[in-house]
This record gives sequence, structure tokens and C-alpha cells, in this order.
Amino acid sequence: MASDLKSKFLEVYEALKSELLHDPAFEFDDDSRQWVEKMLDYNVPGGKLNRGLSVVDSYKLLKGGNVTEEELFLACALGWCIEWFQAYFLVLDDMMDESHTRRGQPCWFRLPEVGLIAANDAVVLRNHIPRILKKHFRGMPYYVDLVDLFNEVEFQTASGQLIDLITTIVGEKDPSKYSLSVHRRIVQFKTAYYSFYLPVACALVMFGENLDDHVQVKEVLVEMGNYFQVQDDYLDCFGAPDVIGKIGTDIEDFKCSWMVVKALELANEEQKKILHENYGQKDLASVAKVKELYNTLNLQGVFEDYENKSYEKLIKSIEGHPSNAVQEVLKSFLGKIYKRQK
Amino acid sequence: MASDLKSKFLEVYEALKSELLHDPAFEFDDDSRQWVEKMLDYNVPGGKLNRGLSVVDSYKLLKGGNVTEEELFLACALGWCIEWFQAYFLVLDDMMDESHTRRGQPCWFRLPEVGLIAANDAVVLRNHIPRILKKHFRGMPYYVDLVDLFNEVEFQTASGQLIDLITTIVGEKDPSKYSLSVHRRIVQFKTAYYSFYLPVACALVMFGENLDDHVQVKEVLVEMGNYFQVQDDYLDCFGAPDVIGKIGTDIEDFKCSWMVVKALELANEEQKKILHENYGQKDLASVAKVKELYNTLNLQGVFEDYENKSYEKLIKSIEGHPSNAVQEVLKSFLGKIYKRQK
Repeated sequence: MASDLKSKFLEVYEALKSELLHDPAFEFDDDSRQWVEKMLDYNVPGGKLNRGLSVVDSYKLLKGGNVTEEELFLACALGWCIEWFQAYFLVLDDMMDESHTRRGQPCWFRLPEVGLIAANDAVVLRNHIPRILKKHFRGMPYYVDLVDLFNEVEFQTASGQLIDLITTIVGEKDPSKYSLSVHRRIVQFKTAYYSFYLPVACALVMFGENLDDHVQVKEVLVEMGNYFQVQDDYLDCFGAPDVIGKIGTDIEDFKCSWMVVKALELANEEQKKILHENYGQKDLASVAKVKELYNTLNLQGVFEDYENKSYEKLIKSIEGHPSNAVQEVLKSFLGKIYKRQK
Repeated sequence: MASDLKSKFLEVYEALKSELLHDPAFEFDDDSRQWVEKMLDYNVPGGKLNRGLSVVDSYKLLKGGNVTEEELFLACALGWCIEWFQAYFLVLDDMMDESHTRRGQPCWFRLPEVGLIAANDAVVLRNHIPRILKKHFRGMPYYVDLVDLFNEVEFQTASGQLIDLITTIVGEKDPSKYSLSVHRRIVQFKTAYYSFYLPVACALVMFGENLDDHVQVKEVLVEMGNYFQVQDDYLDCFGAPDVIGKIGTDIEDFKCSWMVVKALELANEEQKKILHENYGQKDLASVAKVKELYNTLNLQGVFEDYENKSYEKLIKSIEGHPSNAVQEVLKSFLGKIYKRQK
């Protein structure tokens, strides 16, 4: 069933791609059509597709299973809009972070024929979203809400990215600026809104709901996003590179990661000195010293404890929601990320 | 009167900026607010403001002069959306072209504290547009048309940028691929839609018009955009750097410029060889050889001739339009760029 859905979802990708490559608002020639097709195939469908599939799952749960073929297509299309959104930000993030690999292959901008053109490709990816929305949702009563939703979440994501980037500048001078509250704020805006709130919000809008009535749902999903990013920060350091598809560089890049925030919280003065001296250094010896300290501080155990407590807290919040269908949506989402290895 | 309008327009910039810096969709802190304010002041208001002011001029002409204070504010806000749009693309273009100066100052990404963060700043600039539209136009019957318009033009601009970038890759191997029709297609999508069609389209939408009824206006404006870009290409080579605010690098960058296209058209075999050997080379001697050839071919005269003929042709098209108000709008726009030196 899950793999049925995934193959349907991938079918919709091909359909959307084909429409975009023949968009009458632009006069494609062979070179530009081939470029965009290659760029899409390289950057859009290669992830776990959790965000996109969640729109479809959520919509099905809200409808109690009675979903027409047309509705299924539309829910998939919205799911793909989120995957496009993600691809857009990942292409830009990788350039700004000077990353090397993504999803087990070189970052797009690392391809010799691409380079800085990747910045414009990110813009093209971004522009495909309103093209998809216009083509398939322009006649719907909720069209304008959908467009507003994507715009608002994009603004929040870009703002989160901004504070992440400037916090790193400040942090490099003084890592004691990194704290759990700084971490949480970055995560909420940079990751949680688009990865967790957006998929469910898309399903709710398509189901005919007014998002102003779902503040509680937003809060739970933002909290789930926070939990997800803590996992991400953990996996960047302790995950298996061949499983997560990249080699983590948070330590080298001086990232305001949950790991370093926790380490600063738990470290004694001597250990803090080790962090200050080695965090953000590119050489392997410094990175090893930081990881050794993380082990000394038992951050793996601290993480497991955090994971269990977060899960319990989230379940409790979810079970406080008046609608069973919404509870199911949220639990299904949580189930997908609980104890994930990638 | 014109300077009155400009000071009003600049007042509206301050009002919009202040709203954006207190947008409740994001939790600003002092660092992020200061960053965005500096970034806006550096990149948004420093140009000629022709595109933005044209919205206001055009709207006034359509209304026959009877414009309320509120309408004036709204027309200025739409004008600023176009200036924001322009800033967004210029910040990215300068990164991709590895330019040095823009509007008489270093490009934003060249500032040591900015660097690659400029890519995200461009995204922030882009995101301000729907924030401005939502805040001031959400209740208008034409809100959705406005949002669709900006989205469509952005898609066209990004697509134009794409063909410009990939044409340059192909052209570097074989400059004979550059032709007038390739040039025209790049210009139409990369420049004409957002610089010429968008301001007038904004005014028409705000005036209550359906853009589907104004295909002819679009055609004239795209033609005007073409004329404008030919001027731009000319000024990049023969303009005064202190007047245009940058040092042109089209020759070094192997750009598909109107100048090289015309030169290829007029050159004999020997002269073509000079072009093939020197176009796209970074050294001053090669650039000088290309410019010398442009002089030998009398491209200044060819340009003057083109300028006069374009102007006459445009005036004739404009005078074929049934509405006097629309004629005035188009003539006013043309008047602003005819024989411009910057």
C-alpha cells in the first residue's frame, strides 16, 4: 500500500515535470528544456519524499479514505510543491554552506557545468511552485489561501535561514552565544514550518479548512519539527554517512547544532575550553577532539533521553486534540520520524 | 512635480521597510532586524527607480489625474514591489556574473561580512513582495491577479536568465551561435517583462483592467524592453562608467550582447577571426582589440541608426492603440528611456 502510494506519487512527478517543460509562459528550446529536466531529476525526487507523501497521507486521513482519483492527483501535486520547495532551499543552502554531497551524490552546484548557475536554478525551482498551483488549483475556492500559505512559509524559512547564517557569524567569535533558545528559534523558522506545518496545512486547506482555526495543530507540528532537527543534528555527528547520504560538517562549519548547545550546557570549564579551541576548525584532529568530548559527556545517552521525552510529550499534546482525524494525521506524521536513522 | 513624486515615493519606501522589519510572521531580534534593514537600504532604493515610478505615473495617467492619497500610496507600494523584484535579481546576477560594482558601489556579495549569504538575502528580498502585496492588497478584488502577475513575470525572468546563462556556455565554445534572434529571446524574458510590461500591468490591474484584454500593450512594452536592452549593451561598452555606475564587462564575460551580435553580422572573415580570438578574454589588450573592431565597424553609428528607427516604430505602434490614456502611458514610458545616457 505504502509502495503503491509512492509509485503513484512518482507518476505525478513525471506529469508535473512534463507540464513545466512545456509551460506556454516561456518559449523553451531544446537546450533549456534539457537543462531544466536534468536539473529537476537531479534535485527534486531523490530524497525520502516524507514531506510530500505526508500531504497525501494527511488528506486521506482527513477524508476518511474516500478520495477520488482527481483528489489524489491534487494532493500529490501539493506534496510535490513541498518537495520542489525543499529542493529550492537545499540547492541554495549547499552553495552557501559550501557542502560537497547531498543525498549520496555531489551537490548540484559542484557539477562543473553548473557552478554558480545553481543560484538561478534554485530560483527556477521556486518558480515552478506557483506554476503548479496556478495550473491545477486556480479555479478552487481555496486557491488564494494556498498561494498565501506557500508565501508565508517561504518567508519564514528564508528568515530562519537568515538567523542561522548571522548567528554563525556571531557564534564564530563567541560560541557561548549558542543556547537552546537560539537553536529552537532557528529550527522553528528554518525547518519546522516548511517540513512539518506546511504538509498538514496543505491537506487542511484542500479539505476546506480555515487555517486560522488550527493554531494548536501548528504548535504541535512546530514542536515535532524541533524534535526532527535535534535528530538531524545528532545524525550529522553520529549517523552513518552511507545511510544519511552525506558527510556531516556541522562541527567544521561552526553550526549552532543541538549537540554543541547540549555540550556547552553540560561541560565543565576545562571541557568548554576544548570546545572553544576546536569547534569550527576544519582539521580532522579538532573534529575528533570535539566528538571525543561529546562521547565523554555521553551525548548519545542524553539524546536518547531527549528523544523518549519528546515523543511522550508530543503524543500527549496530540491526544488533547478534539478531532480524531486530526489526531491520526499528527500521529502518522510522528510515526514516520520517531527513532529514524536517516 | 517629478521630484515631489520621487520624495513621496521614497517616503513610501520607509513605510514599507518599517512594516517588513516588524512583520509578525517572523520573530526579529536586533541582529536580524539590523541585517535586513542594512541589506534593504544597500540594495533596494539606490537605482534610477524608473520601473517603480512608472507604476505611479501610469496609474495617474489612467485615472486622468484624480488619484486619492490612498491610491497614491498603493501605486507607490506596487512600484516598490518592482524595485524589490529588481534588487532580488540584481543581487543574484552579480553573484553569478562575479561582478564587482553596481550602482557606483561594491556589489552586495562583495562586502566581506556578506559573501555567499547574499544568496539568502536575495530570497528574503523576493519574499518581501508577497508580504507587501498581502498587507496592502489582500482585500482587493484584484489581489489574486496581482499575485499571479508577479509570479508569472518572475518565472519568465528566471527562464530568461537561464537561457542567458546556458547560451553563454554554448557561445564560449562557438560564438557564431550568437544571433539577433537569440539576443531578442533572452532580452524578452530576462528584462522586458519585468522592466517594461510589469509596471504598466500593475497599473492596469489596479485600475481594474483584465490583462487578457491588453495583449497589444504587452507587445509594445516587450519591444520597448528590447530597445532598452540594446541601449544597455551599447552603454556597457561605450557608456561612461561614472554615469552608469559600473564598469562594463560584457566583452570579458562573453555576453550575448547586441554589440557582438551586430559585429558578427557586419564583420568580414578577417574581422570575425579577431572577434573569435579576443571576445571573452579577460586581458585588457583583448578587450581593446574588440572595442577597436567595434569602432572600425562604426557600431556607434549603427546604434544611433537603430535607436532612431526603433523610436519611430514604437511611436507608430503606440499611436495605433485605441485608448488615449494608454497611449499616454506608453509614450511617457518611452520618453523616459529615449536617448538615455545611463
